Amino acid sequence: MHDDEPEAAVLRLGHRPGRDDRMTTHVGLTARALGADRVWFPDNAGQSLETVADITDRFGGPFEADLTDSPKALLREWDGRVVHLTMYGERVQDVETEIRRAHRDDGEPVLIVVGSEKVPFDVYELADWNVGVTNQPHSEVAGLAVFLDRLFEGEELEAEWEDADRRVVPMETGKRVESPDETGTEASDDG
Amino acid sequence: MHDDEPEAAVLRLGHRPGRDDRMTTHVGLTARALGADRVWFPDNAGQSLETVADITDRFGGPFEADLTDSPKALLREWDGRVVHLTMYGERVQDVETEIRRAHRDDGEPVLIVVGSEKVPFDVYELADWNVGVTNQPHSEVAGLAVFLDRLFEGEELEAEWEDADRRVVPMETGKRVESPDETGTEASDDG
Repeated sequence: MHDDEPEAAVLRLGHRPGRDDRMTTHVGLTARALGADRVWFPDNAGQSLETVADITDRFGGPFEADLTDSPKALLREWDGRVVHLTMYGERVQDVETEIRRAHRDDGEPVLIVVGSEKVPFDVYELADWNVGVTNQPHSEVAGLAVFLDRLFEGEELEAEWEDADRRVVPMETGKRVESPDETGTEASDDG
Repeated sequence: MHDDEPEAAVLRLGHRPGRDDRMTTHVGLTARALGADRVWFPDNAGQSLETVADITDRFGGPFEADLTDSPKALLREWDGRVVHLTMYGERVQDVETEIRRAHRDDGEPVLIVVGSEKVPFDVYELADWNVGVTNQPHSEVAGLAVFLDRLFEGEELEAEWEDADRRVVPMETGKRVESPDETGTEASDDG
């Protein structure tokens, strides 16, 4: 997670344009907001890439988003550990300590693989850990979020964002968005 | 979270049929998988309701999914505390202890409100807490997932499911789905 920590990257595997656009975008935005350093999307997910790049421009980084035309090669050649999130995997509460130890103590980069529909069997075999955030069907975005929050033990929530045009100021009630350089407040049109 | 705990319910506010179908469905499935007792969807989200009910039939409960034609009335008349998840709210790490105390120690039911696009201002005012899982734009599904995992302090991952037709057996590699009554294994066609 940034600075002196080994890399944590997210690979979105599989994307059906149209149907998966928002899920793929949310995988990317969740990766960014919850402490990953970068995301790779399949090369037919250019729209998701644009959205994530635009959010990074406005709300800050560091965060890299890229397309890949060979996710399998990326996976095979990854110089570090691979975690595949799947409802069929080992329980996250049983393996998170071991994964954290590899990542934070042993300094190994971690690639977190998030599938869409059917994930080919060799991904299960290539992964160092197949991990279930519950063994129930729910959402790859939810699974990624809980996994990152546990991998970083909540420290990702304290991140400082660089080169942001705007910063949301936490409030009990209402919305407040500031420019980091100024004391000015702007109205927001976000939901 | 089930049994002797006060209720935790999720209210999905706003739904645009077509565009929001999968996000709304994932809000419901995440609520179920991560320990909430029920979800309400807007009454134009019947398709999401069907999917969540079908998953509950197959993978077990208890979990209730319903439509509401008056989410605002439900919110106003809720007999307990209201948490509204929003990127403009107070930082989850700053308020989670207080919310957990109200819910688990004082036994107050909690209604967790998850918006889609623009949330009306009176929702911010009706909420006991406006809570940001980061003050970054990402995903309402991710925010809900991290919030529930923190509210229940991971205990939701140990849930036992009742009346399930099938149960996924956590595995290091591969997929295994069993019928809870038998020792038989069936092939899965889930992704």
